[in-house]
Amino acid sequence: MKQLKAYQPLSALAEQLKQTHLNSLFDDNAQRFAQFHVQMPGIMLDFSKQKITQEVLDGLVSMAEEADLKQWIERLIEGDELNHTEGRKAWHTALRNVSNPVPEVAEQWDKMAFIVEELHLQQMRGYSGKAITDVVNIGVGGSDLGPLMITHALEMQKLPQSPDIHFVSTLDGRQLQSLLAKLNPETTLFIVASKSFTTIDTLSLAETAKSWMKANCQSNCQSQNAIMRHFIGVSANPAKMSEWGILPQMQLAFWDWVGGRFSMWSSIGLTIAIQHGMEGFKAMLEGAHAVDEHFRNAPFKENIPALLGLIGVWNTNFLNLAGQAILPYDSRLKHFAGYLEQLVMESNGKHTQRDGTFVDYRTCPILWGEVGPNAQHAFYQLLHQGTERVMSDFILFKEGQGSDERSTFHQNLNIANCLAQSRAMMVGQQSDDPHKHYPGDQVSNTLLLTRVDAYHLGMLVAIYEHKVFTESVIWNINPFDQWGVELGKKIALSILESIDQRDASELDQSTQGILQQIWEHKT
Amino acid sequence: MKQLKAYQPLSALAEQLKQTHLNSLFDDNAQRFAQFHVQMPGIMLDFSKQKITQEVLDGLVSMAEEADLKQWIERLIEGDELNHTEGRKAWHTALRNVSNPVPEVAEQWDKMAFIVEELHLQQMRGYSGKAITDVVNIGVGGSDLGPLMITHALEMQKLPQSPDIHFVSTLDGRQLQSLLAKLNPETTLFIVASKSFTTIDTLSLAETAKSWMKANCQSNCQSQNAIMRHFIGVSANPAKMSEWGILPQMQLAFWDWVGGRFSMWSSIGLTIAIQHGMEGFKAMLEGAHAVDEHFRNAPFKENIPALLGLIGVWNTNFLNLAGQAILPYDSRLKHFAGYLEQLVMESNGKHTQRDGTFVDYRTCPILWGEVGPNAQHAFYQLLHQGTERVMSDFILFKEGQGSDERSTFHQNLNIANCLAQSRAMMVGQQSDDPHKHYPGDQVSNTLLLTRVDAYHLGMLVAIYEHKVFTESVIWNINPFDQWGVELGKKIALSILESIDQRDASELDQSTQGILQQIWEHKT
Repeated sequence: MKQLKAYQPLSALAEQLKQTHLNSLFDDNAQRFAQFHVQMPGIMLDFSKQKITQEVLDGLVSMAEEADLKQWIERLIEGDELNHTEGRKAWHTALRNVSNPVPEVAEQWDKMAFIVEELHLQQMRGYSGKAITDVVNIGVGGSDLGPLMITHALEMQKLPQSPDIHFVSTLDGRQLQSLLAKLNPETTLFIVASKSFTTIDTLSLAETAKSWMKANCQSNCQSQNAIMRHFIGVSANPAKMSEWGILPQMQLAFWDWVGGRFSMWSSIGLTIAIQHGMEGFKAMLEGAHAVDEHFRNAPFKENIPALLGLIGVWNTNFLNLAGQAILPYDSRLKHFAGYLEQLVMESNGKHTQRDGTFVDYRTCPILWGEVGPNAQHAFYQLLHQGTERVMSDFILFKEGQGSDERSTFHQNLNIANCLAQSRAMMVGQQSDDPHKHYPGDQVSNTLLLTRVDAYHLGMLVAIYEHKVFTESVIWNINPFDQWGVELGKKIALSILESIDQRDASELDQSTQGILQQIWEHKT
Repeated sequence: MKQLKAYQPLSALAEQLKQTHLNSLFDDNAQRFAQFHVQMPGIMLDFSKQKITQEVLDGLVSMAEEADLKQWIERLIEGDELNHTEGRKAWHTALRNVSNPVPEVAEQWDKMAFIVEELHLQQMRGYSGKAITDVVNIGVGGSDLGPLMITHALEMQKLPQSPDIHFVSTLDGRQLQSLLAKLNPETTLFIVASKSFTTIDTLSLAETAKSWMKANCQSNCQSQNAIMRHFIGVSANPAKMSEWGILPQMQLAFWDWVGGRFSMWSSIGLTIAIQHGMEGFKAMLEGAHAVDEHFRNAPFKENIPALLGLIGVWNTNFLNLAGQAILPYDSRLKHFAGYLEQLVMESNGKHTQRDGTFVDYRTCPILWGEVGPNAQHAFYQLLHQGTERVMSDFILFKEGQGSDERSTFHQNLNIANCLAQSRAMMVGQQSDDPHKHYPGDQVSNTLLLTRVDAYHLGMLVAIYEHKVFTESVIWNINPFDQWGVELGKKIALSILESIDQRDASELDQSTQGILQQIWEHKT
């Protein structure tokens, strides 16, 4: 990044802007909002509350051009092998081209549609012949966060014929244990979702679910196959699914070119399709596809994901801000920040450039968030008066829900709070009492979307995906691998063996000391 | 902080330690675990994976002594007016002195016990004479996060005679709307929890709940009072509760000396008492009280909260680390990081010293977290290979749940993962492939507790409270006020007025521009 010609001039501008209060940028320019907001149908990005001038914007766009962002976008969408460290493409955009799908994707839609229809028509039945009433998605990371986030957000729009959807992800088994206590095995269907179908978290939970099913079905079951009618597999590894016992008609596929954190667009999104039908699922794909087209075609100065990425780089590398807060002003987006924690930090939490040299600049900042009004009562104190300078994304929807007096009041109150917070962060407040002094000058984006539905959520997620990609291009890193999670997995297996053998002598003293205390407690 | 004598020598040590890999600290000292772990009954802190030597530890303890930490602790527990900017004490420790309570606290326990018993004996009945089956806590921030976190963690240990507990906090009203659709007004009890009883979020939700109750009870109700049997108020402002219509026998009190984020120990914890009886609630208080005694009496070198605070300062101000990750290895602690986000960032996200001068050093870092194994599949990539250096707290429990084969496997797997991650962060890994290079050298604490129950959760929360307090003493800030949240509230009311009048002309262009788009959409 530092070798790009645009880098030095931007650094110089940053030194000036560090001395300029955000408030004064508004005072000095009556056209600031007009100049620094962009839109596409369904979404508007207001970045006027960033420390950005026309000169900075021009510089950032030059930097993007210099870094060949345009060509990188083409290669992404054309399905080039961008994930070079794993020798794979990162072709999630191909999953959402609804009107012109690649054949293997369309084939999986047909399989999904069949399963969804069977469930909706109560044709899918368990070992005792009763119709399925509850679907449990067992998966973790990319096989959990997307479907969880979307089905939670759209729960109030659920089809009446949809069974209830549950999610289990934590390997300690307690979540599953607590859920099983409430479910009837005769009417429960499990979706075992794992790209590799070797994820120990997921497989161990699936094994526990299978034991539960076996224990309950014992006397009723004609054959072992009867149990397996309660298990759907979703994986890029059909051999492993079969080995585990998933019946052929219960297998859904995706492919090595779909990264886990980009997989909710694939058959991993089955729970979304169950809750909203294939129509709802495809509306989500359409929303994302509209963003793909925009990302590919819009000039950078009007390109929402590209601008978001460039602003991210500006804030991280030039203004040296510490963290990124995600603040949706809609309680249905409860799990959105958690979703982005994976998408953003697993993609760009890297220190190695594409060519193998280490970066000498910061890459991904820490990202966290919470439903905005709740966060106001939790950590906004730090945003307003702390010493860490944070960049915030406010996410707001134009439409509320319901038009009665109470609904309108809640909706207006919610809008007022969202706008008040970004304004307060910008303007700050002088006070004679230093404890009531607000420095202001905290930057933010506001994303304004039409409404919370499958289409607009598809757009929103795709925008962040491409924002992340834009940053990765400037930072010259591969956002599609995740080698950083491998070492822990390896060490975990060796410690599991140490636990089985009650011998930790090969491990460091700290690990030994903790294990010793656990063992002493057990005896 | 910088004027303390210990500051300079610690800065010098930090420069050395920045050059020293954590791994080599273990290689060089066979007694490292023995030297750098401390315990009290029920909990052990292993801080051997911090970049700390005996010299650093001595320096930090000197700094604490110099800053009069000992005396500050005395003043805290004695109930001095430590919250000087609001002219109040911060006397949450008085709420948990079960064997020697102050009279007003004991009086509230009696009132809570009465309500809990009525619910458990099905003596509390709604307008139609049916017993209460569902309790909805309406509150936000401190009136929500603690009870939510604890009741979720202990849900599997819930008393069979307890009604079901629900939480509603978001001012957009959608969470409430979705919940009301599932509840029966005849058997639903609302707890309206707000310290001031003026929090607009909470009061607007309570108003909506009241409308719902009225609409449903219309024909059945003998009097307006019949509805109000469905509302308990918990507040430090009885006049406002009465004004809103809460019946005298339905009012629970706490006091201005209980900060919102320290209030789950007060009658704000009513839902905990409903779920686990007063016995369970008091067990939580006892756990916290044991920590209060430890914090007051243990020498700093053996004092868990004091050490955690000093380590926090060391990492933030001397090693200049960017963020704090909270990683509980138990899915029942799903809401623990969210709880700490408020406790930590609302307490110490400040830039003004007690005497009114601004700090010239960093205070509270960004804190976020997630259940550990899930976070492994989400953001650990950044912890292992990112450019941000993060301090992590691993939280682990000795006891699993159940002793059957599957439970034991899940428990061992969980322990193995926790220990593997802290080890991997420490040791890192060299590799010929730079994409598989792990720098290691990422510091962490491990807190090892006996089990997830009310007593140990009480301990855990109190430990973090006092950690935060220790840091605030070194940073010379008041951790008990939250002036930073006031400006946003004020601006929100003025924007709400602008919305009502459809006139945003007094506001900045960005706010105007967004409102304009919302209004255009509506017409």
